[in-house]
Amino acid sequence: MTAPRREHFADRLCSAIESTVAPACVGLDPVIEKLPKTIDASDGEHRAFEEFCTGVLNAIEGIVPAVKFQSACFERCGPSGLLALQRMIGLANALGFITILDPKRGDIGVSAEHYAHAAFNVMRADAVTVSGYMGADTIEPFLAPGYADRGVFVLVRTSNPGSDGVQSLRLEDGRTVAQLMADHVATLGESNLGECGYSSVGAVVAATKPGDAEALRDRMPKQIFLVPGFGAQGGTVESVRPLFDENGAGALITASRSVIYGFGEEDSDWTAGVRRAAESFVADLCALSASR
Amino acid sequence: MTAPRREHFADRLCSAIESTVAPACVGLDPVIEKLPKTIDASDGEHRAFEEFCTGVLNAIEGIVPAVKFQSACFERCGPSGLLALQRMIGLANALGFITILDPKRGDIGVSAEHYAHAAFNVMRADAVTVSGYMGADTIEPFLAPGYADRGVFVLVRTSNPGSDGVQSLRLEDGRTVAQLMADHVATLGESNLGECGYSSVGAVVAATKPGDAEALRDRMPKQIFLVPGFGAQGGTVESVRPLFDENGAGALITASRSVIYGFGEEDSDWTAGVRRAAESFVADLCALSASR
Repeated sequence: MTAPRREHFADRLCSAIESTVAPACVGLDPVIEKLPKTIDASDGEHRAFEEFCTGVLNAIEGIVPAVKFQSACFERCGPSGLLALQRMIGLANALGFITILDPKRGDIGVSAEHYAHAAFNVMRADAVTVSGYMGADTIEPFLAPGYADRGVFVLVRTSNPGSDGVQSLRLEDGRTVAQLMADHVATLGESNLGECGYSSVGAVVAATKPGDAEALRDRMPKQIFLVPGFGAQGGTVESVRPLFDENGAGALITASRSVIYGFGEEDSDWTAGVRRAAESFVADLCALSASR
Repeated sequence: MTAPRREHFADRLCSAIESTVAPACVGLDPVIEKLPKTIDASDGEHRAFEEFCTGVLNAIEGIVPAVKFQSACFERCGPSGLLALQRMIGLANALGFITILDPKRGDIGVSAEHYAHAAFNVMRADAVTVSGYMGADTIEPFLAPGYADRGVFVLVRTSNPGSDGVQSLRLEDGRTVAQLMADHVATLGESNLGECGYSSVGAVVAATKPGDAEALRDRMPKQIFLVPGFGAQGGTVESVRPLFDENGAGALITASRSVIYGFGEEDSDWTAGVRRAAESFVADLCALSASR
């Protein structure tokens, strides 16, 4: 495609994936107990998280196209944690990553507008995860004309065991609850297609529920899947395979703990361990792509 | 009951309702355009929100037992908004209100632990709203032993039109999705009963869907319902009646805009208008109680 890309979210993401080889996203879920010993936490968790995330972001720059920030890790530090989150998203944007904020927000009307404003204008993330339990109208404020260059990923099928007790249940029309949500997502995303063919309305679909993957892919052909659960949570190359579409695209695979804590006791420079883990993650995804 | 109350959330809430007459909760959803003209917003939205909420809280002290803070309104201001929220919850706690934080969080495992820590230990709210789309296990971290004096309200049936497209759909076993969520809530709440007989695990059930009320009440006999949608959103005294249990208790009715913006152009002291609106709200609920 020779035409200059417009700033549509899906186009930017596809372009970033092309330029870095793999559809890989690193999840920044800092937990104080797991940080490298060289990081001093005596000035507060939020400062330690900033130092850690700065190290991780610089280590994986150019290796992966996207990063995902777990909002909860920062919110637990209160207002200073939010400031750290804001700074780290700013750094990630400056380094050229596609930035995904993962706060799983879901509320109605004006409250949803506030959350969209907070994620896109205040935190300045490229995309945000949202929950649709309250209905499709609660997602629409994130798709307002002013956010045409931003994306959302709606929770459809999550990785935790208890999700089966809601998302796997079958409606009287034969769909599971997850498939019902998938249909809402596909409908919401119809009018938000980029030149790449994907919508700026994507879906969170876990790597740990491979049995559900094909039906969800069929229902959401234009959606980019944000796939958590790779690595430490048990998702494997085989389990993510059916989440890609027939062109071997349309999914962004996220690994968190297996990359950001990829350093060992023996690493004099912990960021080298993180870089190595990110390269290994990318190599796994490239092998998957080559085997198709 | 002569025994001293333990610090169980439901007991504290029931006691607070008894002492202030009505099961009324005022929702603090500040929006800059609607603030009284005498409030100066030139130092930032968050400062204006603090001044406004301080005025509202002092005006309604002793009239209603509980207040609910809409997190989105403060999050849109970024870290300084969170600081304002933290201060206002602190003020509400000091004034003796039961404080409910309404961020509708929902995430798995350690992320849910972070959100519980943020709501209960950092923001110091008595209770928090949560979303159960990801499953019952995502709610359990809010019920950890350290939070025995705190409460949660799980989203079951919400007031917005689009909620029908998820929560009203029927499963093959005959339950609606909202009823499925209600059953999870009832199960989660079984081991968390206070001396008053109610659980610290409550449910958000809207006033604007009265047709669903009885079935949800039957499924959740031990749950306190947090009922949004009264007043400006269209909920009426008649529509909230079936949300109470057979003893005429077990529901906390929330009015937001109709109270906090209850002042008029003619009010020289806008807080007097808010106080008047709160008294009117309480009178409506007392009339409901008397008519039973």
